[in-house]
Order: sequence, then structure tokens, then C-alpha cells
Amino acid sequence: MYTSETTIRVHYALTDQMGVVYHGHYAQFYEIGRTDAIRALGFTYKNIEAMGIIMPVIDLHLKFLLPAKYDDLITVKTFLKEIPQSHKVIFYGEIYNEKNQLLNIGEVTMYFMESQTMKKCLMPEALNLKLQQFF
Amino acid sequence: MYTSETTIRVHYALTDQMGVVYHGHYAQFYEIGRTDAIRALGFTYKNIEAMGIIMPVIDLHLKFLLPAKYDDLITVKTFLKEIPQSHKVIFYGEIYNEKNQLLNIGEVTMYFMESQTMKKCLMPEALNLKLQQFF
Amino acid sequence: MYTSETTIRVHYALTDQMGVVYHGHYAQFYEIGRTDAIRALGFTYKNIEAMGIIMPVIDLHLKFLLPAKYDDLITVKTFLKEIPQSHKVIFYGEIYNEKNQLLNIGEVTMYFMESQTMKKCLMPEALNLKLQQFF
Amino acid sequence: MYTSETTIRVHYALTDQMGVVYHGHYAQFYEIGRTDAIRALGFTYKNIEAMGIIMPVIDLHLKFLLPAKYDDLITVKTFLKEIPQSHKVIFYGEIYNEKNQLLNIGEVTMYFMESQTMKKCLMPEALNLKLQQFF
Repeated sequence: MYTSETTIRVHYALTDQMGVVYHGHYAQFYEIGRTDAIRALGFTYKNIEAMGIIMPVIDLHLKFLLPAKYDDLITVKTFLKEIPQSHKVIFYGEIYNEKNQLLNIGEVTMYFMESQTMKKCLMPEALNLKLQQFF
Repeated sequence: MYTSETTIRVHYALTDQMGVVYHGHYAQFYEIGRTDAIRALGFTYKNIEAMGIIMPVIDLHLKFLLPAKYDDLITVKTFLKEIPQSHKVIFYGEIYNEKNQLLNIGEVTMYFMESQTMKKCLMPEALNLKLQQFF
Repeated sequence: MYTSETTIRVHYALTDQMGVVYHGHYAQFYEIGRTDAIRALGFTYKNIEAMGIIMPVIDLHLKFLLPAKYDDLITVKTFLKEIPQSHKVIFYGEIYNEKNQLLNIGEVTMYFMESQTMKKCLMPEALNLKLQQFF
Repeated sequence: MYTSETTIRVHYALTDQMGVVYHGHYAQFYEIGRTDAIRALGFTYKNIEAMGIIMPVIDLHLKFLLPAKYDDLITVKTFLKEIPQSHKVIFYGEIYNEKNQLLNIGEVTMYFMESQTMKKCLMPEALNLKLQQFF
């Protein structure tokens, strides 16, 4: 399994009048965690797009256990449980606050697609090689 | 079943550099659909909060079939399949573009909670009464 | 002078924990007002981009008089005080709530630029023609 | 003068289909810079709110020189040119990319207000004391 951790400080724009982070904004936390997970491999999602491959999200499933609040320093844990063998990849995630309370559980499924043809494709080989060592 | 429809024009801020609506923003489309569904009952979510009840989202599940694009006039359909009998309510949703293509399927689960005590509670009776006629 | 009006319902995602609309989100209100102003001419900003012209914002100046709140039905008034004679266009705006209180005053300056070359250019002639009748 | 620097990685949600950061989102960059400037004093904006004081933005003026792009690691410089003597405080800001190109210049004016009464007030004395050493 490949895992990665990112910390994010919750800023005001992310809160809503309930005094907590708006539920829709957690997608951004997982996005940041995911791109940092790729960056930690010595690679970037920007590289992937430059190679003509995009990774649209096709399924987003979030469970809200406890709210993240303004100024919280949250930790996003990103998990890749297996090396993607097809055009589909699933990133699992968990978000914790500074008291190490689990706030949120996420599951984000994406496709690899050629941006030119919009056809599904496999993970770039370069990224595959980077991941091998963790599995 | 209670159903409701809302149209939303996609503005620039919602797009990302993939040229489509950023996946995290669909939560807002369903929020707008949901509040319009409540408003169509002659009630508002603002009323509910004024009664001391908040409705935090505890589960968000979105399936992305086709992308919404800039300037699309999308239709959000909101479905309440049953009158909530407990502290939990599930809103089902579908998003269509002007060609009537199904773009997105959503399922948003919320709790009824007393804002003072943060304890789970039942749906306000006034809202329950409004809903009876549809079931 | 060319003027246009748009109404927008403030949804939850736009609020922050101060219980009002987050200041950064007013840019979106003016964007929506501006594109509706163009649409009311029988034209769309999407058309303009399809013609190879983009309109990046180069100056944004907002004055916050009173806060917009959740569920407010605000009116965005958009003013074009003169037909742009150069590569620059200024949209003036005002935002009112349902009590007709002036909440916000905005001034958004944009360039016309060719998306291919990123060179400044003039307003599309087709849009110029549409505007003539108002000046 | 009191100055502070913050770095922010631009994530996908902040981009728009022009391939750059949406203009309205720069307000968030300045917000993050501003709160980090306060934090660097051994204080937090959260503390200020806990003291019953809120700081609504009353004027936002942004100049866009060059666009910030996806995955850019931008630096937000925040300047406080004088210790606020009244209920008003002005934060000046500049945003640079990794090539040290100046992308954006911002000026954000805020009021100190008592959250209970919504009356303008002076800066908290504790914050004033922290700032003295820089002027």
C-alpha cells in the first residue's frame, strides 16, 4: 500500500454559517492530499496532464463524522491500496484534526483518460514504476 | 414521493482548467436543489435553522457520468423517497443538461440536530405536515 | 449607458462563520451579473470565447456596505457606462437585497485578449453593434 | 512596518477554464497571508473572534498583473504599514510566483467590530502590544 500525509490549515473561506467547513469543500482537501501523494513519488499531477492524460473524478463518496473547524490544522491521509491495473484508480482518504479525531472518510474514484481523444487509458508507465516499490 | 426541479446556470467560477465543472462544486448544485425543494413546500431551510434545528450533511455520494460545462443551464431534480421517520433524511438527486443528458447522480444524507444541544432530533412537525400530501 | 439586472439566491456554500457571505465570493455575483448583461444583448460570453477572445479581469475593486446573508435574494445591477474604445472594458455593479438596501459596489476591469496570442485586442465587432443602440 | 510571508500551493479547484486561478479566489490568498501574519505575532484571528471582535472586510482592491497557475507555489507577502489607530486596518499584499514574478497586488481594508453589538471598536490591546516592536 502507498500512503501519504498532508496538513492543511482551514481558512475562513471554507467555513459556512454553521461554524464548520462546508461539506462540499472536503473534496478539495482530498484533492490536495492526492496531489501531494503523487508529488511525494517525485511526480506531479501537472506532469500527468502535460503527458496528455487527465484524471476526471467519476465517483466521490464522503462520510462526515465530526466537523472540521476554522483554523484547524487538519491532516489528510491518502491511501492507494493497489496499483491500478485498468483505467480506474481509487484513492482512499481520512481526515484528522489536531486531537487526532477522525473527521472524515473519503473514497475518490478517477479515470485515466487521454485528453485529446477523451478515451480511457492506462496509468502512465512512469507513475507505475514509481509505485512498484510500495507494493 | 416528493420531487422538485431547479435550474442553475453554470458560471465561470465553477469551472476548472479541465474545461468542466470542478467535481467538488456539485455538492452546491444539490444544496440549491434541496433548498428549493423545501421552499416549494412553502417553507425554507432558513426557517428550520430559525427554529433551532440544523441539518448537517453526514454522507455525500456523487456519481459523475458526464461533465457539466460553462454556461450550461442544468436542471437539478431532487427526490425525497420517503418521509423521514427518524433523525436522518436522504435527498436523492439527478442533474441534467439542456440536451436532457444525465450528468450526475447524487445521494445526500443529513441529520436533524438541535443547534443548541447538538443532539439528533426529529424533523420539524411543520415540515412533516407539508410533506404528508405527497406520500 | 447599458444596464442589466440579475437576481441571485444566496446559498449556504457562500456564507462563512461570520454568518454572512464571504467577501471573496462577491466577485462571483458580479461575474454572473456581467454575463447576464451580455446575454441580454443576444450574445454570450461563451460566444466570445468561441471567437478566440478571452476577457481576463485585471482590476477588481469592491466596497462592502452591508452584508448579504444566507437565503437573501439579491439583485445585481450591471452598468456599462461607455462602449469600450480600446482593449479595456469596465463593468460597474451594485448589489441590493430585497429591502432595496445597497450592499456592495463593484468595479471590474477586464481586457479583451486573443486567446491564441495572448495579445490585447478590441471588443468583437458583433458585440459592439449590439451595444450601439444603448449609447 | 510589519511584514510576513506565506507560501500556498495552487490546487485544481482554484483554476478556471481559462487555465489560470479564477480572479475571485485571490481574496482567499490574501486572507491566508493575513491570518499567517497575525499568527506570526503569536496570536490568531481565531483568538480575536474568541475575544468578541470580528474583522469584516469593507474594501477589497486587487490588481492582476500575471496569472497564477495550477500547481504554482505562490508567495503571499503581507504588509501592515502602520499600527491601526482607529477601527480601521489596511493590509497590503503582493503575490509572487516561483520565478519571483509579481502576479497580484492587493489592498484589503477591514473594520474591528464587536460581534455582540456590531459596533466599530479599536484593535485588541493584546494585538497592539505585539505590533509595537515592529514600528
